[in-house]
Amino acid sequence: MTLHPDIPADLPAVRPELDDDPVFRLHRGGKIETALRVPLRDRDDLSMAYTPGVARVCQAIAAEPDLASVYTVRGNTVAVVTDGTAVLGLGDIGPAAAMPVMEGKALLFKHFGGVDAVPLALATTDVDELIDTCVRLAPSFGGINLEDISAPRCFEVEQRLQERVDIPVFHDDQHGTAIVVLAGLRNAARLTGRTLGDLRAVVSGAGAAGVAVTRMLLDAGIGDIAVADTRGLIFHGRAVGMTPVKQALAADTNRAGLRGSVVDALAGADVFIGVSSGRVPDEAVGSMAPSSFVFAMANPDPEVDPEAAHRHTAVIATGRSDYPNQINNVLAFPGVFRGALDVRARRITPLMRLAAADAIAALVGDDLSALHIIPSVFDPRVAPAVANAVADAARADGVARR
Amino acid sequence: MTLHPDIPADLPAVRPELDDDPVFRLHRGGKIETALRVPLRDRDDLSMAYTPGVARVCQAIAAEPDLASVYTVRGNTVAVVTDGTAVLGLGDIGPAAAMPVMEGKALLFKHFGGVDAVPLALATTDVDELIDTCVRLAPSFGGINLEDISAPRCFEVEQRLQERVDIPVFHDDQHGTAIVVLAGLRNAARLTGRTLGDLRAVVSGAGAAGVAVTRMLLDAGIGDIAVADTRGLIFHGRAVGMTPVKQALAADTNRAGLRGSVVDALAGADVFIGVSSGRVPDEAVGSMAPSSFVFAMANPDPEVDPEAAHRHTAVIATGRSDYPNQINNVLAFPGVFRGALDVRARRITPLMRLAAADAIAALVGDDLSALHIIPSVFDPRVAPAVANAVADAARADGVARR
Repeated sequence: MTLHPDIPADLPAVRPELDDDPVFRLHRGGKIETALRVPLRDRDDLSMAYTPGVARVCQAIAAEPDLASVYTVRGNTVAVVTDGTAVLGLGDIGPAAAMPVMEGKALLFKHFGGVDAVPLALATTDVDELIDTCVRLAPSFGGINLEDISAPRCFEVEQRLQERVDIPVFHDDQHGTAIVVLAGLRNAARLTGRTLGDLRAVVSGAGAAGVAVTRMLLDAGIGDIAVADTRGLIFHGRAVGMTPVKQALAADTNRAGLRGSVVDALAGADVFIGVSSGRVPDEAVGSMAPSSFVFAMANPDPEVDPEAAHRHTAVIATGRSDYPNQINNVLAFPGVFRGALDVRARRITPLMRLAAADAIAALVGDDLSALHIIPSVFDPRVAPAVANAVADAARADGVARR
Repeated sequence: MTLHPDIPADLPAVRPELDDDPVFRLHRGGKIETALRVPLRDRDDLSMAYTPGVARVCQAIAAEPDLASVYTVRGNTVAVVTDGTAVLGLGDIGPAAAMPVMEGKALLFKHFGGVDAVPLALATTDVDELIDTCVRLAPSFGGINLEDISAPRCFEVEQRLQERVDIPVFHDDQHGTAIVVLAGLRNAARLTGRTLGDLRAVVSGAGAAGVAVTRMLLDAGIGDIAVADTRGLIFHGRAVGMTPVKQALAADTNRAGLRGSVVDALAGADVFIGVSSGRVPDEAVGSMAPSSFVFAMANPDPEVDPEAAHRHTAVIATGRSDYPNQINNVLAFPGVFRGALDVRARRITPLMRLAAADAIAALVGDDLSALHIIPSVFDPRVAPAVANAVADAARADGVARR
């Protein structure tokens, strides 16, 4: 038994292939910890941070609840909540196994956005229970980042939860992805002298990311967009596999009434957006319009081979860090919550998300090229720029309390 | 808008009387924050702490859930859970106003025990909802410290929650207090050449602390003990105000069958233990047996005036830091959870609590005097000694997994 900070050294050995693995070694004891923001040297310190001094702070908040945003961690703390049903590309691995991702998210929140985040992997997959649990947790947090909750439950959880709490609820797999895709697409359009209204897009995948990307591109004025799920293109009147979310998509997308598969829709299309794991044949990419864009974001294997796609397309983006143009949510969520917390936003509106995308796109500036439509995740300007844009948009939208 | 670590400086001014108050200034931005335990300098770091590297850790835990105790924060993290119904002496001030105390607790957990703690103030006071919420949170935590939940709900919450999770549940207002009282009482008895079996005690207060202190002193072999609530002494056959918990107390305490008030019971008693706010007249203290002990722990005003009680008693302890012999839970909970986490205990047993009390008492050693029956909360030996004793007792009791 040794006290902090030597805890990892005291953890038991597991077995050589894990103990010697650098990734597992890095994870020993977890990736985050609690740190003290106030001194605890003597009785005077204790009597200020704890009893009896703390009682006056409690009483002030009881009389004036808004003071909690100044005098407690609530003002800077986000819950990172999952049920472990759609973790990375691994699927439904349960809450305990989802924790390393949630901790990683908390790490990124703090490092890039200065946001304190608490990983919470919940032992329920019931929509009502997930919502109720988050509602009960809300007094301790300034925001709730939903993470790796499978579709279509994620849509209902986010919407109904936001209706019940006055702090921002943000499902990163939906909106984080959508913000960064829109940022990249804006710059790809600029590179080729077009606007979003000039583009016809095809989205492969109607899960959390596919639906949110589609909705956001519609908000941003995309020319037309068609979405395919595992049963093929979604169109008005399709009889099979239509959830309420897909019914709504059918009404708002695919104005050309295309049927068939992603391959059928790609002929003459300007943009391919892959957020599934289905491979797209090289010939289908070749059938796209001139100066087309491919955003193939499946990990670790993009839907389109980036090497081969070069022959057919003007811009290629992937989810991978070892190719140019990485579409990475890390560009969005730290700054989005930083901005939302800074103004005590009640929610995160479409305008705030659009502002985040524009802020990310704008940072590329004159460095724009086919190999550079999006900033690096390590560009220190990103989170502050996103935060400022989100905060301004929150004020403009009337959801800021500060 | 400024990024970490300058957040408090950016918080808005409130009003001069709070902005200039040292206690409120200390609380600006909260008392704890998230800290990174791994580097995030470049893509290589990111690919180990987050995707794609993290996926292998998730898969390993999915295959072998126990690995979560080594490779996630779960192994060292405790939830500090309240519903805000019995906060300090302030009563039912609600979850938001309870947060400064929960954060203070997290501060103490980390500083004294090296335990990472997450303050969670829940927006429900329903027993079933409190339990269900904690059950759902359990995959993220190595233990649950219940805090400031009013009696008698706290007894049911603790018991039923522990039946549903395989991590330790510990209501500090009950057991933390009981552990430190027993430690002090053991040393007071030693000082006067007696054992616990020689002592007859009177407890004023049948809330969380009163019930737990009584139960623990019974476990430790106290001679006899009588408990009074606001209706007077609890005795077998009392008709009014008898909850199930008090019915059980009536069966196990007050073997003399005393009726009436605390004052009636104090005549000839050896020990007074105050965990309510009711004042006890000086004459009643004077009616106690020779070499009596007074543990008057109401804050900020002890049930017995320590200055006056000196004339009648051998030992006086209070909850205050400005008198000798402070009975402070900080002596117990950091070490109790440190020890429980170190051995991955499934629960905290009566034997583990008794071991904690004995470890605290033993540290006084040869320095024992009427003004020093309990160590200082800043004695650095306390948490390690408690942790070792608790870990050993967990192994002896068969609840350790490591």
